[in-house]
Amino acid sequence: MDGIGESLPDRAPAGELLCELLRCFYALGWCTGTGGGLSIRVQGGYLVAPSGVAKERVCPEDLFVLDETFETVSPLAGTRQQISECTPLFEAIYRRQGAGAVIHSHSIPIVLATRRDRNRRLLRWQSLEMIKGIRGASYPHPHEIPIIENTPRESELRESLEAALQSLPDHAHAIAVRDHGAYIWGRDAMEAKRHAEVYDWLCRFQYEESLEPPHREEGA
Amino acid sequence: MDGIGESLPDRAPAGELLCELLRCFYALGWCTGTGGGLSIRVQGGYLVAPSGVAKERVCPEDLFVLDETFETVSPLAGTRQQISECTPLFEAIYRRQGAGAVIHSHSIPIVLATRRDRNRRLLRWQSLEMIKGIRGASYPHPHEIPIIENTPRESELRESLEAALQSLPDHAHAIAVRDHGAYIWGRDAMEAKRHAEVYDWLCRFQYEESLEPPHREEGA
Amino acid sequence: MDGIGESLPDRAPAGELLCELLRCFYALGWCTGTGGGLSIRVQGGYLVAPSGVAKERVCPEDLFVLDETFETVSPLAGTRQQISECTPLFEAIYRRQGAGAVIHSHSIPIVLATRRDRNRRLLRWQSLEMIKGIRGASYPHPHEIPIIENTPRESELRESLEAALQSLPDHAHAIAVRDHGAYIWGRDAMEAKRHAEVYDWLCRFQYEESLEPPHREEGA
Amino acid sequence: MDGIGESLPDRAPAGELLCELLRCFYALGWCTGTGGGLSIRVQGGYLVAPSGVAKERVCPEDLFVLDETFETVSPLAGTRQQISECTPLFEAIYRRQGAGAVIHSHSIPIVLATRRDRNRRLLRWQSLEMIKGIRGASYPHPHEIPIIENTPRESELRESLEAALQSLPDHAHAIAVRDHGAYIWGRDAMEAKRHAEVYDWLCRFQYEESLEPPHREEGA
Repeated sequence: MDGIGESLPDRAPAGELLCELLRCFYALGWCTGTGGGLSIRVQGGYLVAPSGVAKERVCPEDLFVLDETFETVSPLAGTRQQISECTPLFEAIYRRQGAGAVIHSHSIPIVLATRRDRNRRLLRWQSLEMIKGIRGASYPHPHEIPIIENTPRESELRESLEAALQSLPDHAHAIAVRDHGAYIWGRDAMEAKRHAEVYDWLCRFQYEESLEPPHREEGA
Repeated sequence: MDGIGESLPDRAPAGELLCELLRCFYALGWCTGTGGGLSIRVQGGYLVAPSGVAKERVCPEDLFVLDETFETVSPLAGTRQQISECTPLFEAIYRRQGAGAVIHSHSIPIVLATRRDRNRRLLRWQSLEMIKGIRGASYPHPHEIPIIENTPRESELRESLEAALQSLPDHAHAIAVRDHGAYIWGRDAMEAKRHAEVYDWLCRFQYEESLEPPHREEGA
Repeated sequence: MDGIGESLPDRAPAGELLCELLRCFYALGWCTGTGGGLSIRVQGGYLVAPSGVAKERVCPEDLFVLDETFETVSPLAGTRQQISECTPLFEAIYRRQGAGAVIHSHSIPIVLATRRDRNRRLLRWQSLEMIKGIRGASYPHPHEIPIIENTPRESELRESLEAALQSLPDHAHAIAVRDHGAYIWGRDAMEAKRHAEVYDWLCRFQYEESLEPPHREEGA
Repeated sequence: MDGIGESLPDRAPAGELLCELLRCFYALGWCTGTGGGLSIRVQGGYLVAPSGVAKERVCPEDLFVLDETFETVSPLAGTRQQISECTPLFEAIYRRQGAGAVIHSHSIPIVLATRRDRNRRLLRWQSLEMIKGIRGASYPHPHEIPIIENTPRESELRESLEAALQSLPDHAHAIAVRDHGAYIWGRDAMEAKRHAEVYDWLCRFQYEESLEPPHREEGA
């Protein structure tokens, strides 16, 4: 952890923001089909969205609250809903990266990127201004994030995710999961959103560029 | 049927939800040009959207109500509108699958998928996490839905749709119609929406992946 | 004309609807860059959107009113705005087709379709259920609309547009303009919108299908 | 400058408009990941959006105000935010072009266009009606904008941007930056928006057309 605690948001406004961001992520195609998710660190613990529900319709009362040791204190409402199966992965990222928020995205361009070459264990971009939207990254240098292999159950990803976090490339703020999506984080919810938008832009750009026919002289 | 009846929604909130979902489906491109549709099972019967009207502008008063034997009790308003031509197809799915809601989608990625190979009678996906959004489906296993041939009039699809329902692949919650779209269902309206989003994601993903040029070593 | 007059809408609600539809068409990408437009026939005349303004921000007070002989009665507000340059084309379509509304679209898929083969003078679709969204068209039969050549000034299109109207294919409710877009009409504003959505779906579908690689056996 | 000053908007309505347009540009994909930006000339100076924040959430109080000599008078709120790094580039465009507003876009189609051929220093379109949305441009004639090379820091672009402004092609209202995006301007905010929509349409159109397979006779 890195002293981020002193400026952590209160639960109530963070819960409102979490639900607003889920509506935004749904519109962006990152959490359709009840997939994807979001967690925000708050004073005294963590908020986590429920599993298996339409993410764009989640209300603050539907959120789960975990204490600082990641024990569930309460589903805010006495609901039949279940906490996101991503929770152990969120926990691993919070513990190792000192993150303030973690997004789980099912974005099509990210999943396409993970399958382009099943032997590659990294996504890599270079010479795109948009890379500068990632904290610490710079324009002319390559930027990379790891790809880990998917598992039948989401919670089984924890081991390989932790291994990937131990040898994370410089400035990487995401781990892609082959056939599945990505976990993306930031110092707070808005930075996590910024990073998720940048990785999405980069994957979409790289996909669209890959479709272009080889350049022909004087093609206009 | 499967005892779903005891938790069926009341007409009034289901009517509001039906109209809200139509606006959502219009924005997703599933029911432009007045195509597509939605029906929800309620206490004592079924709600069905009218035919040939802008689906994103349907109000609860425009909905048709059918009783449990699928006789039209009333168009809620004394309107000149006609009930969806899909009604016999909705009925067949309700009767056989014990569904709580049925969506008819004209999504472009689904129609593209039905035409990729006119000899194939199944759509098939495998090794994509998103498949888990379908009730009963799992990550590493293939998931399939049948394709039936289109007919000049929508009501003429009933026979082949019923035949397809009789030999439905494991966990399938949709039937695609070549050149046309798909019928997608779930235990309630929100599950039908989840399934429709998943099938749409899968078709869109498969289409976009099919455009990629063959992998070249060290392509970044 | 075809007796449509007796059920023509009043100016005030038609003006509200016209502005609401422009916002919808902007979101659909049909009138970005202040291009595109919309006119609705009303009791005693016609409403026409102004030229060269952001179409999604047009208010009823910005609309021009023409009488039944297509003379401008008033810009509803004492504005510096100009009436759409499409007005003579709208007039030709109203006179010949007995239309109740005309949409001018700059949709990218439509413009792509007009340029696929510069020698072709028709757009043509067949065996797509969506075709049935056009009044009079049916599923298994081909549906065609003419393409006319673009001209430096929009008003110069009138002659070729009138020639195209004289030999319009069966059930056609649109004329495409090469490099430019299309004029699409219906018996009232909602039918014109339905037709525009259908033609847009058809052009987009045909474009996306044209990108697919040739079918390979057992490709999943 | 060109006497535009006498009709410059007041700060308060221009600040509201600036924030509304940022929300619109975010939805269009031009300023995701906190990239992109917007500045509007007002009575007595200039408004500039802050840097590194979610552009769709900027409020009028977050805007920076510069006086007519481009000195920062005040961030309207006593905020920790920083003024956009684009400010020196906005200044250069205001000074040379007499613009009333400048947009900085990270649109994917524009960035794709800058990378299609790294030896080209111009983007060029011809024979597209949409070109007429640029002030002074006409339908049958080619329209061009310059491409300049990207630099590690945005402020370092100023020199090459000024050189490009000195030899700007006829009617050009934008400068593209390779690997990065574009600066687009107009006489006022709404014209800058119109120009940005037109350039975006042109780049998107050209990209989509480039993917089409070569025309085959009688392909429908």
